[in-house]
Amino acid sequence: MNHRAVCAVIIGNEVLTAKVVEANGAHLIRRLRERGIELNSVHMVRDEIDDLVEILAACRRKTKFIITSGGVGPTHDDVTVRAVALTLQRPVVRLPEMEARIRSYYGERPVPVEALRMAEGPEGSTLIPCGDLRFPVLECDGVFMLPGVPQLFKVQLEAVLAQLPGTPGVLRQLYLSVGEADIAAALDGVARAWPHVAFGSYPTWGEGTDHRVRLTIEHASGEVVDGAVAALEAALGSSIIRKD
Amino acid sequence: MNHRAVCAVIIGNEVLTAKVVEANGAHLIRRLRERGIELNSVHMVRDEIDDLVEILAACRRKTKFIITSGGVGPTHDDVTVRAVALTLQRPVVRLPEMEARIRSYYGERPVPVEALRMAEGPEGSTLIPCGDLRFPVLECDGVFMLPGVPQLFKVQLEAVLAQLPGTPGVLRQLYLSVGEADIAAALDGVARAWPHVAFGSYPTWGEGTDHRVRLTIEHASGEVVDGAVAALEAALGSSIIRKD
Repeated sequence: MNHRAVCAVIIGNEVLTAKVVEANGAHLIRRLRERGIELNSVHMVRDEIDDLVEILAACRRKTKFIITSGGVGPTHDDVTVRAVALTLQRPVVRLPEMEARIRSYYGERPVPVEALRMAEGPEGSTLIPCGDLRFPVLECDGVFMLPGVPQLFKVQLEAVLAQLPGTPGVLRQLYLSVGEADIAAALDGVARAWPHVAFGSYPTWGEGTDHRVRLTIEHASGEVVDGAVAALEAALGSSIIRKD
Repeated sequence: MNHRAVCAVIIGNEVLTAKVVEANGAHLIRRLRERGIELNSVHMVRDEIDDLVEILAACRRKTKFIITSGGVGPTHDDVTVRAVALTLQRPVVRLPEMEARIRSYYGERPVPVEALRMAEGPEGSTLIPCGDLRFPVLECDGVFMLPGVPQLFKVQLEAVLAQLPGTPGVLRQLYLSVGEADIAAALDGVARAWPHVAFGSYPTWGEGTDHRVRLTIEHASGEVVDGAVAALEAALGSSIIRKD
């Protein structure tokens, strides 16, 4: 299990059937990157409890932290809390602090029993305050259960990020005049010599671009990145058009 | 295993580290929806062969068809073919038809050994022609291995869709003046009475909208959808602002 990394699970048939354009995944990927938090994988799954437990268990074997999006409302297809509880082998309980918040929101009005379902969480859950937002983040054992509504997801995600370990890294890029096949041997050699550096190779197609391949070189240390870039410059020579 | 459904696996560190904005997943979701092809799940994973085999095997237990995006080029991080071969328990072989295409492209020029890596596939693979595109779709046992470059992915995806079973369904929507908690009991009741209909419930937040919840009702049969909509209208009455 990687104790610094995150898996993300986006829950909901609406995403997979294109009834809603999925926005939370892309936002999460960008924000984790900006904070230097490692993302292991993103999974978009239906709100079927068995499928959800299976993927949550698989994520749990990989990373200490899981961020889920969706399936936390009061309707029949909101299965996230139950699935997380099953995965963590904990019972679902009503959380007194959440219940008090919901009752306070309804005030004098009767509280529908379905609204109180939103006060449920796996036993041992903690609530992370989110500034002015009425709903805190529900967290249990490293699993953060966020709502799927993008406006709420974004606000709650910031509260989660503040709790995760991150190290913003150094990224440099080389732009090449030749195709991937022509540089593959040289790139493989440099990648083997610099095993801790993350190399990426992205071909471009079509008109309107000055390069055929963009290489990315990334590591927490700028000195290490400089070394790997120098090795690539030595290996690729005049194929390099520019760098940034 | 669902013999009509698809799982999608988007491969590549570049996606998870936001070096590339992921576009193929959203495009695939939309096109499958338009063709009425059922999508079970979408997974974005790193190009680590063990992780990839694990998720491919999990997808294979769910659905007959898997569409992968990325990891099929000639560089060190292109592990898709090997991962698919391991999952299907087949050896990787050089496909004569692909080799001939690559040699023809290079013509008189020497062919780099790395370019020939793109002629490899799991034993028993078939090649599906893609019109004018130089590269056909590589397919083995229901797994379609598409390139991650969006322009190529889009073209190849159309060739894949033509091979998959689809039934465009009927979708209707109801717009409500009340929140999810207030309709949850009624919606649960109707959903239990119409178990084959797919119901969705999507709250909206903020100004500039005339409704608080949008309900979606979906099934292959328009008559079934009409019945479920009538049941919802009876249950929700004056909360319904409009429908489409």
